[in-house]
Amino acid sequence: MITLHHLENSASIRILWLLEETGVEHEMVMYDRDPATMLAPDAFKALSPFGTAPLLTDGDVAISESAAIIDYVLDRLPDSDLRPGADDPLRADYLFWFHAAGATVQPLLTMRFVHGIASERAPFFVRGVAKGVLGAVDKAFTGPRLSAAFTALEAQLTDNEFIAGDRFTAADIAFGYTLYMARLRGGLLEPYPALSGYIERMTQRPAWLRALERDGKFMGVPG
Amino acid sequence: MITLHHLENSASIRILWLLEETGVEHEMVMYDRDPATMLAPDAFKALSPFGTAPLLTDGDVAISESAAIIDYVLDRLPDSDLRPGADDPLRADYLFWFHAAGATVQPLLTMRFVHGIASERAPFFVRGVAKGVLGAVDKAFTGPRLSAAFTALEAQLTDNEFIAGDRFTAADIAFGYTLYMARLRGGLLEPYPALSGYIERMTQRPAWLRALERDGKFMGVPG
Repeated sequence: MITLHHLENSASIRILWLLEETGVEHEMVMYDRDPATMLAPDAFKALSPFGTAPLLTDGDVAISESAAIIDYVLDRLPDSDLRPGADDPLRADYLFWFHAAGATVQPLLTMRFVHGIASERAPFFVRGVAKGVLGAVDKAFTGPRLSAAFTALEAQLTDNEFIAGDRFTAADIAFGYTLYMARLRGGLLEPYPALSGYIERMTQRPAWLRALERDGKFMGVPG
Repeated sequence: MITLHHLENSASIRILWLLEETGVEHEMVMYDRDPATMLAPDAFKALSPFGTAPLLTDGDVAISESAAIIDYVLDRLPDSDLRPGADDPLRADYLFWFHAAGATVQPLLTMRFVHGIASERAPFFVRGVAKGVLGAVDKAFTGPRLSAAFTALEAQLTDNEFIAGDRFTAADIAFGYTLYMARLRGGLLEPYPALSGYIERMTQRPAWLRALERDGKFMGVPG
């Protein structure tokens, strides 16, 4: 039996969503954040290889990293079409978008988000300079890269109902959460109608709504 | 026939290494960076979904993202033990480290590297403040996270010759490059003897050396 160690208000919601979509049998242990620091409790951090969420255990195995857990859970469902196989026409698009969510788009969004937080928290007498410095990094680095990614996503979602093509896959679980958080944390910065419609479709899925309900406190607080 | 569109001095070296390790038949097209801007040429950017390297094409398919390309190439080798299958005892560790390289460690290293470049390039009259602001972000954000990851890696490589256990897998291709670049770009900041020994072992592999030779100019310039 696998156990999801669920840290409230974190990227762990992605795995709850996956479990609700697939119906894989599991147990869930809830961990609240420290109300003062908003950090994960020590009991959680001690179990996770890097101290991060999401975290799943299976006997002696402890596995973190969203994409790794998605692959690990899908190993239990060899007949599922959530992970297109080598001969599936969706395979190349699936692999590209599945990995792009975690290795490119999410890190760029996190970097921009961390810069925003750092600007706000800078002491008031250097806040203007801090905003200038961090804003310049975002203008030169995260901005153009996010723009290229969102433009490619917009094109993909103009032609397709789902990220990898004409059916729901684990790439939607990887990207749906990432885009939902991007919107929560200050928008996509440009109007992307296909992308916005896609976020709406994903957030109306019954499995996503059940995941939100099971978390109980999910409000877009950073993971 | 697959084609690697190889951008010199970039993360594309990871895919050259994979191709050399596996012997998968392929063609290679070389792209030089613009000598003034060090950016990829427009012909390269036009082919790649986000304009980034690495990039592989296969007929009409264009696929980027290192981890996606690794999975796509390994699909051609169903009997290879480079990607442990669902029943393999290395599976969980393989998945965790394979994804952690691209989705956690590489982005944190890139963020720290970009902050360093931004500090150096800031106009001299704000350089001190820029260094202070960006250094504070690294102290609060990338520093503790990289430290947790390197500590976990050090433990894993103290007990195992390779990242996922007792044999070479694609997780070594993902992480070996990341760690090699970390060392090139200013060290690992702490002494990690097992990790350093691992980097030495990886960079002595004949396939890695052949990949360096085929690139011809690889010196650790950012991808």
